[in-house]
Amino acid sequence: DPRLKIFALNSNKPLAEKIAKAVGVKLGKSSVSQFSDGEIQINIEESIRGSHVYLIQSTSSPVNDNLMELLIMIDALKRASAKTINVVMPYYGYARQDRKARSREPITAKLVANMLETAGVTRMLTLDLHAVQIQGFFDIPVDHLMAAPLLADYFIDHGYVGDDVVVVSPDHGGVTRARKLAESLKAPIAIIDKRRPKANVAEVMNIIGEVKGKKCILIDDMIDTAGTITLAANALKEAGAIEVYASCTHPVLSGPALQRIEDSAIEKLVVTDSINLSQERKIAKIDEVSVAGLIGDAIKRIHENKPVSPLFESKKR
Amino acid sequence: DPRLKIFALNSNKPLAEKIAKAVGVKLGKSSVSQFSDGEIQINIEESIRGSHVYLIQSTSSPVNDNLMELLIMIDALKRASAKTINVVMPYYGYARQDRKARSREPITAKLVANMLETAGVTRMLTLDLHAVQIQGFFDIPVDHLMAAPLLADYFIDHGYVGDDVVVVSPDHGGVTRARKLAESLKAPIAIIDKRRPKANVAEVMNIIGEVKGKKCILIDDMIDTAGTITLAANALKEAGAIEVYASCTHPVLSGPALQRIEDSAIEKLVVTDSINLSQERKIAKIDEVSVAGLIGDAIKRIHENKPVSPLFESKKR
Ligand SMILES: Nc1ncnc2c1ncn2[C@@H]1O[C@H](COP(=O)(O)O)[C@@H](O)[C@H]1O
Ligand SMILES: Nc1ncnc2c1ncn2[C@@H]1O[C@H](COP(=O)(O)O)[C@@H](O)[C@H]1O
Repeated sequence: DPRLKIFALNSNKPLAEKIAKAVGVKLGKSSVSQFSDGEIQINIEESIRGSHVYLIQSTSSPVNDNLMELLIMIDALKRASAKTINVVMPYYGYARQDRKARSREPITAKLVANMLETAGVTRMLTLDLHAVQIQGFFDIPVDHLMAAPLLADYFIDHGYVGDDVVVVSPDHGGVTRARKLAESLKAPIAIIDKRRPKANVAEVMNIIGEVKGKKCILIDDMIDTAGTITLAANALKEAGAIEVYASCTHPVLSGPALQRIEDSAIEKLVVTDSINLSQERKIAKIDEVSVAGLIGDAIKRIHENKPVSPLFESKKR
Repeated sequence: DPRLKIFALNSNKPLAEKIAKAVGVKLGKSSVSQFSDGEIQINIEESIRGSHVYLIQSTSSPVNDNLMELLIMIDALKRASAKTINVVMPYYGYARQDRKARSREPITAKLVANMLETAGVTRMLTLDLHAVQIQGFFDIPVDHLMAAPLLADYFIDHGYVGDDVVVVSPDHGGVTRARKLAESLKAPIAIIDKRRPKANVAEVMNIIGEVKGKKCILIDDMIDTAGTITLAANALKEAGAIEVYASCTHPVLSGPALQRIEDSAIEKLVVTDSINLSQERKIAKIDEVSVAGLIGDAIKRIHENKPVSPLFESKKR
């Protein structure tokens, strides 16, 4: 359908190229650059009148620049009479600011949702939101994909199946995610239970479940500074795990993250390409699984008015 | 009135300090910092329930970060039950993207207005908008101040008054602004008329008006890369001007601007502190006039429900 157009902004062009290939279209012609003073300049170099536009942008670091690129592009598309504006946001930035944990805090994840709707988005497609409640921050349709089946396929391909494997959640909030992966791998789960015995005493990593002599897979939705995950990995190793893998959908990997991973007991970190890792950041310990096929399939299904839910199962199970 | 609170974000703290002093209040306690991954973290460290909050922020470079700081702070204030949220934006970024000059262009100045209103601003106070039409992009009250009277006072103090002075507009769009300054200085005006004689031939700077043997003052709303203004200054000098001053409200001064000014015939550049110049950027050729008193007076008048228009005249005239 010539009315289906995919445009890439600057945060993750390699993924956008792969998605376009998966859908079977060429990326739309556009450029996003900066004026001398740093203001964003957008040029859309082909007509999009009457088109169904899919805009690929993760609001990863630099988050404010990536978000403004997206909002300005949406404004331009709206004024150029796009029929629908579908934002494909593999990584949703500011998702951890999703509630008032203390008084006078902003709820930036909701602000971002309002900004996108005000700019003119008609539909959202996203992946492993930090909190599923964020879907409710929008009054437009939101499709929510999960990378777990893809990560499961990776581990199945590498022989991580059955009773000598344990899927470990690094905290109580992540148990559902761990259980989902464990089911695909026909493996049991374990949970890391962080406790601070007294104030001003270092946290203790208690492990609930059997890990001795097992291959452990730690799973989380995102890894940012990698503090928790590397401490958890080391605790698993000390508790007798024979091998520790870690996995997440979104490799934020800010600040000391890469060094901590290098220095830790983590054998391999399996991530997706929801966030683009620059060449220097693709260290040997990191394996990347692409979400391009998953997102491409979702775009095709949305464009054909079909539900995206059939994409939620591992293909190798 | 203890319900009047002024908060500073990060773009221009020195100006915010001066405004608070002019109003006679202490700056509200808050901090705006970044998480490890670059997301903005805001802490408001005092109750603002029921308060009339004035938020000082210029959306100068880094424009996207400064804009997001502002939007997130507005969200936090709104959720913390501020009675009114008054944004004081001495420099309005993205103001040059105020119309579709070509097809498929965004109108980012309008997008910014929509973002601010959606976030929860109840009133805007701004200074020398690049286009006055931007006031109409808002559906809330917008007060629009002018720095011309302050700049006039500077020139009057330095003896630039009367018939041996000419106020020069660097283009036809700026004639009204030049005329306003000229009136205060009891001086005539001149206009630079840029013409490209043929395609691919350098522009020629024609001067309309008498400048030979005169002291010239070039005036514009903002100086960005300083290309036009330095060429104009050199043309005035070649046409026999004995001295060339330049003046603008907003010293954007990006890219090659400072070097061009250093290398040009400009004797002195007179700017306001609507945009904060770092210490390295305060070169000897630049003189700064503060808008703190003007903005402080406007805040007091708004808070007392009085019109701001009496602030529009030079005090020394
Ligand atoms: N970008 C960020 N980096 C680190 N912490 C954050 C970030 N954004 C929000 N937070 C904090 O993380 C907490 C939420 O994380 P979680 O409990 O995992 O949902 C909140 O207390 C936030 O203050
Ligand atoms: N930040 C910027 N830096 C340089 N040029 C810009 C910027 N923003 C917009 N423009 C361009 O400047 C022109 C508007 O300037 P003006 O004619 O002075 O209102 C438009 O053609 C814009 O494309």
